[in-house]
Amino acid sequence: MSDIKTQALACRQAAQALAQMPSAEKNALLNAMADALEADQESILAANAEDLNTARGKGISGAMLDRLKLDHARLSGIADALREVAALPDPVGQITRSDVRPNGIRVERTRVPLGVIAMIYEARPNVTADAAALCLKAGNGVILRGGSEAIRSNQAIAATLKRALREAGLDEAVLTLVEDLSRETMLQLLQLTDIVDLVIPRGGEGLIRFVAEHARIPVIKHYKGVCHLYVDKSADPDLALRLLIDGKTSRPGVCNALETLLVHADIADDFLPRAGRALRERNVEIRGDERTRSLIPEALKVTEGDYATEFLDLIIAVRVVADLEEAIAHIQRFTSDHTEVIATGDEAAAQHFVDALRAAVVMVNASSRFSDGGELGLGAEIGISTTRLHSYGPMGLEALTVERFVVHGAGQVRHPLPG
Amino acid sequence: MSDIKTQALACRQAAQALAQMPSAEKNALLNAMADALEADQESILAANAEDLNTARGKGISGAMLDRLKLDHARLSGIADALREVAALPDPVGQITRSDVRPNGIRVERTRVPLGVIAMIYEARPNVTADAAALCLKAGNGVILRGGSEAIRSNQAIAATLKRALREAGLDEAVLTLVEDLSRETMLQLLQLTDIVDLVIPRGGEGLIRFVAEHARIPVIKHYKGVCHLYVDKSADPDLALRLLIDGKTSRPGVCNALETLLVHADIADDFLPRAGRALRERNVEIRGDERTRSLIPEALKVTEGDYATEFLDLIIAVRVVADLEEAIAHIQRFTSDHTEVIATGDEAAAQHFVDALRAAVVMVNASSRFSDGGELGLGAEIGISTTRLHSYGPMGLEALTVERFVVHGAGQVRHPLPG
Repeated sequence: MSDIKTQALACRQAAQALAQMPSAEKNALLNAMADALEADQESILAANAEDLNTARGKGISGAMLDRLKLDHARLSGIADALREVAALPDPVGQITRSDVRPNGIRVERTRVPLGVIAMIYEARPNVTADAAALCLKAGNGVILRGGSEAIRSNQAIAATLKRALREAGLDEAVLTLVEDLSRETMLQLLQLTDIVDLVIPRGGEGLIRFVAEHARIPVIKHYKGVCHLYVDKSADPDLALRLLIDGKTSRPGVCNALETLLVHADIADDFLPRAGRALRERNVEIRGDERTRSLIPEALKVTEGDYATEFLDLIIAVRVVADLEEAIAHIQRFTSDHTEVIATGDEAAAQHFVDALRAAVVMVNASSRFSDGGELGLGAEIGISTTRLHSYGPMGLEALTVERFVVHGAGQVRHPLPG
Repeated sequence: MSDIKTQALACRQAAQALAQMPSAEKNALLNAMADALEADQESILAANAEDLNTARGKGISGAMLDRLKLDHARLSGIADALREVAALPDPVGQITRSDVRPNGIRVERTRVPLGVIAMIYEARPNVTADAAALCLKAGNGVILRGGSEAIRSNQAIAATLKRALREAGLDEAVLTLVEDLSRETMLQLLQLTDIVDLVIPRGGEGLIRFVAEHARIPVIKHYKGVCHLYVDKSADPDLALRLLIDGKTSRPGVCNALETLLVHADIADDFLPRAGRALRERNVEIRGDERTRSLIPEALKVTEGDYATEFLDLIIAVRVVADLEEAIAHIQRFTSDHTEVIATGDEAAAQHFVDALRAAVVMVNASSRFSDGGELGLGAEIGISTTRLHSYGPMGLEALTVERFVVHGAGQVRHPLPG
């Protein structure tokens, strides 16, 4: 049996005790983990310094080095995030529905943990603690497979978290860090049907496609966020402009940033010159269709490829559409099913936009940037799903559980015997 | 592009209109389909007669021939099943939660269709109508791939249903019957990621394993039901006996029938001889451990393999366990995560049994045979899932939808501009 299979089976076994652990004990465990991370700051930062040195030696710099870097403030932030997860309501055991059938049996739907969740991610060592906390709180075993750049940081964080697990009387296998980062071991992990219940890849599109391509176990994924803002003819132009600037410029490198602006033809003459000025002031490159370029002279020519691109940068594609239907047709063609926004003063138009689109999140007169677990009230986010199965959109604790049936009877049978 | 890909894309396109269709129109469509099936009885039965002839020519007989056979009564039953689906509440558009965040945005969770669902099944032609009705009611396009034995029956039923679709103004591609039953086309269908959202195989374990092995799209499946009844020492013996007889003998060939009886050692001397007599009267073969054989002389010797077997027959494995913990350990080892039952008079024991097991359905003092969508109140059942993702246990209309987020704001942004 491969090492990874042995480890995964041990994780599955250990998760049985965790699945039955009372909420108060799980919360105490997460708080103890947060304290332990703060107590072990020096050793974790020393391990992280080694990772940073190795990365610099490989010529890694800029944003990637920044994602890898830990310091006292970031570690405190990670510890606080664990405390926040501890404070969230526990989904396990929640009774979501209860119904008495005509024969008197009481049918309840209650939440149980999924079992074992594998997280596959890249250079951010904070994911090691964040993902572990969310999976454990929802009663699941967790297998963490981070990127090679962060291996020493991840080992140090995992060692600290495992100490807290042991002190809580749990089998530390419930949190398993994969230390063999070979492609072969990753492929074996992705084949462990009936042992691992779900894999969640977090990182660039390449990583996610690799996981989706090779996994025999269920994958929850999202590739990209090509988010649209449609400004309806009835929109308040000031409101629409706020949504545009927030959506495009408040953090252009994230998946809930805007990539495309669609403007109703009837208001294009008024709205687009204003939008052009506001975007230009914030150094946003505009790529527009013919009508847009006639109204914003410095706009470049947009291509079909631009409409399908997640720029993750200060670039926006702009198109004037004849009406709501043309906006919907454009979005249906290019949607990544992540987040779509309408600015409108017309309730019927808003409702039609919501009904016609099946994106994970549809916003009416609110910024695309709210498409985030914390902002939507989930408390914390383990990932986001743009596939319409199990979970759709930002995923919180509940998405790490599933509803099952518990039936209470008094001896009812389906075919009572005569007499 | 392969034919099946062209067909699936047409189905996906057609499903967009269906996804927005008001409930009343969908219900009228299903009722019209039921009427059309009754109006077309003669042509459907003629097609079915051809299938039966071909099957007999191949030497098919018995249960399989019976599953294939239609007659006037069965066709009326199928039509009535469609009318029942029409009468069920529509999950699409349901608002499951609504919450106003501190910044004033209103966050709703609402149900949307999954998109396109592929059903892969064997000889039962009724699945063609049943599955179509459930998928369509939940706003999904459906691709039906039935067994070759039923091809003419399925073609006739699909032709009738498609006529009703056209008369309702829908693109008939929303219901697509796969008529090329080659292995190659099935494999192509199972690879259509981003076109088909879900595949549900229904049939024997071989079919399900084939689909699970080859699918690149999500699969919801269940392999088998090895359902246990544990009779606790505090159980009312009459009640326990009722659950045993109903669970084992009311329909032994189905997945929610009992396969294993576990009896607490303290009551074995009283309970097992009675159970043995009742089972023997109903021609049930008993395979027991040593203690069981000492109490039921005609019992055969049970093997480890028996404990893992879904007999689908009048055979039961019996074991005496020291206590509740040993019963739970046995079930955890052999469970198929389908349905587990406890007979007990002790609420704490019941709660511990429920908490320790994560089967899709856990019954306290009720027959395993209630583990069925209709009996549990789902109205109808498209299948059953024993994987803890998306849906767990019997699946009704809701399981053919997913919750997404709809946000209503008044221009809120994440990072308000100064001034």
